[in-house]
Amino acid sequence: MNLPLNHYVRLPEWQVSTWVNTPRSITLESLRGKVVLLHTFQMLCPGCVMHALPQAERVHQTFSDQDVAVVGLHTVFEHHSAMNVDALHAFIREFRWSFPIGVDQASPDGDVPRTMTAYGLRGTPSHIVLDQHGFVRMHQFGRVDDLNLGGLIGQLLAEADHDNSNLRMNGQVMPDIVVGNCTQEGCSR
Amino acid sequence: MNLPLNHYVRLPEWQVSTWVNTPRSITLESLRGKVVLLHTFQMLCPGCVMHALPQAERVHQTFSDQDVAVVGLHTVFEHHSAMNVDALHAFIREFRWSFPIGVDQASPDGDVPRTMTAYGLRGTPSHIVLDQHGFVRMHQFGRVDDLNLGGLIGQLLAEADHDNSNLRMNGQVMPDIVVGNCTQEGCSR
Amino acid sequence: MNLPLNHYVRLPEWQVSTWVNTPRSITLESLRGKVVLLHTFQMLCPGCVMHALPQAERVHQTFSDQDVAVVGLHTVFEHHSAMNVDALHAFIREFRWSFPIGVDQASPDGDVPRTMTAYGLRGTPSHIVLDQHGFVRMHQFGRVDDLNLGGLIGQLLAEADHDNSNLRMNGQVMPDIVVGNCTQEGCSR
Amino acid sequence: MNLPLNHYVRLPEWQVSTWVNTPRSITLESLRGKVVLLHTFQMLCPGCVMHALPQAERVHQTFSDQDVAVVGLHTVFEHHSAMNVDALHAFIREFRWSFPIGVDQASPDGDVPRTMTAYGLRGTPSHIVLDQHGFVRMHQFGRVDDLNLGGLIGQLLAEADHDNSNLRMNGQVMPDIVVGNCTQEGCSR
Repeated sequence: MNLPLNHYVRLPEWQVSTWVNTPRSITLESLRGKVVLLHTFQMLCPGCVMHALPQAERVHQTFSDQDVAVVGLHTVFEHHSAMNVDALHAFIREFRWSFPIGVDQASPDGDVPRTMTAYGLRGTPSHIVLDQHGFVRMHQFGRVDDLNLGGLIGQLLAEADHDNSNLRMNGQVMPDIVVGNCTQEGCSR
Repeated sequence: MNLPLNHYVRLPEWQVSTWVNTPRSITLESLRGKVVLLHTFQMLCPGCVMHALPQAERVHQTFSDQDVAVVGLHTVFEHHSAMNVDALHAFIREFRWSFPIGVDQASPDGDVPRTMTAYGLRGTPSHIVLDQHGFVRMHQFGRVDDLNLGGLIGQLLAEADHDNSNLRMNGQVMPDIVVGNCTQEGCSR
Repeated sequence: MNLPLNHYVRLPEWQVSTWVNTPRSITLESLRGKVVLLHTFQMLCPGCVMHALPQAERVHQTFSDQDVAVVGLHTVFEHHSAMNVDALHAFIREFRWSFPIGVDQASPDGDVPRTMTAYGLRGTPSHIVLDQHGFVRMHQFGRVDDLNLGGLIGQLLAEADHDNSNLRMNGQVMPDIVVGNCTQEGCSR
Repeated sequence: MNLPLNHYVRLPEWQVSTWVNTPRSITLESLRGKVVLLHTFQMLCPGCVMHALPQAERVHQTFSDQDVAVVGLHTVFEHHSAMNVDALHAFIREFRWSFPIGVDQASPDGDVPRTMTAYGLRGTPSHIVLDQHGFVRMHQFGRVDDLNLGGLIGQLLAEADHDNSNLRMNGQVMPDIVVGNCTQEGCSR
């Protein structure tokens, strides 16, 4: 399997103006230790509504919240008034999306909201998968199929076990083996 | 994710009378070191034709042959003359299944062929996933969805890396750590 | 085929506050002579977005505008601010619905808009099919499959031809026109 | 709707060696008065198994046997031994096709069976729709979508009613019967 292992970067914290489906704000930092599927979408984007949001919901139903955090991010870069927070609330309620969804903070400088700019997202839907160390392991615009997405999540879950096992197994810190053949500084093949 | 981690057994060698889509016979033993998806089917089983065989083909297309071996096994337990070897050849050619497919050896004692009996298969389609050590990690009759199947394969691929890393990392044999937190004798939570 | 032939009523004129995808207002009256599929929906109704609107679009693509008028009616009875006219415009543009869509006029008396009340609609999506005389030939809430919908439209189109023949026939017998431009002996182009 | 109205020919009688799902042989002649969907297929043809046969089954479930006769014809032109009559029986039983299916009679002169040659079929699946007079109204190789197929069947059903009206009308004017049991002024139940 050719997983996109080539961009071991960490993302800056997301900037969210409000949250839905969660009693409190969620920071990226707080999800360290879990595999994260960050699903960025717009509520009036056909590819999001027809494919990507249902897939995110399936991931949320398939994997345990303990292991995999599915987080939606509403990155509105067009039709801002049509996709305001009230509209998003109605959309989430009617479509019964059950995972936490944040609203990307508007930018004073233009149409593209802050996190979308910071993360360099091309559009919606975009899929970002982070491993338990917060490294980006997938970053894809458009459509991803379930076998690939499941394959990556399964791999990262096993890596997580791996790391834990290592820690438990060794009675010592293994400082530079973090994920697979990667250090905190980067990865070599 | 609740993966079915509870049956760490090895399968006896399959008994195959003939092979398609491979220049030579394939033994289970020879696949040690790879994740194996063993897909057992009948060519006139609707669930196989409509869902399970296309899924096996997708797995074959998605993952590298180096990492994941997809093997079909034609376990005919009814309509034997209709699903004979010639018919299977025509079926494989017309549907363009590209992965190796073996014919489960007929039993002198009844309708159920030998490997199907030996593996305790309930019917078709049945999905068996083996890790690189040959342990059964999934054994499911009926339908499996892509996220779950992909998730398991990804996990096992990462475990494989893990084990290799361990071997490489430690300069020593770690005799009883086989997969995750399991020994050859069994697994503990 | 059990077509719902039991409610030959005419609908009162719809009450529409604004139109999209048409240069001028459309009256129900003006569509007399065509088969009409009136598709009533809300832009944040999952069954509408996932199934009914794509089906209406397929009908619009499959049949000629000369024969079949597909008309959408946005009957908002909840989340009014989220589904205002601007939001509807964005929705139509992004999802590329190509058929004319009217906005059901708000009622001063409550959440349910005027046409929805007048037509006794249970919810969204609702499908109303009118024959060329304006009689209701189908009125169904929820999901309709393509074979049934196509079957009814085809039937009504043929009835229309039939009527025209009759009208043309008035005052004279056209004894051997049986089907389309065919006689019992054969057909000519 | 651009229906393929350009080939008003009658088909010669089919030549069938054996029938399944019917207590007695069916002749094309005996179906005069019904709309006929003749679905020609091979049991090992992917497009037939995945799309065309399920569609034929849906047509059979959707429309009344009184109005629409769905007839399958097994036109084997390759892999003859793999698709023999016993194999076909097993296929029909396992996939639960419920409509009558005939086996196209083998030709002494080559691989293509007799009816397939006589009808000039390009391959499988082929769809032939006949009106109640036995005229070919659709003849299409490959895939047909449900809206189009339903539309044509509905049209032909209405033509049939039309003709009956005409026949009933013979000798007298029935000036105000326009659609079904409706007058221009209105409809009664």
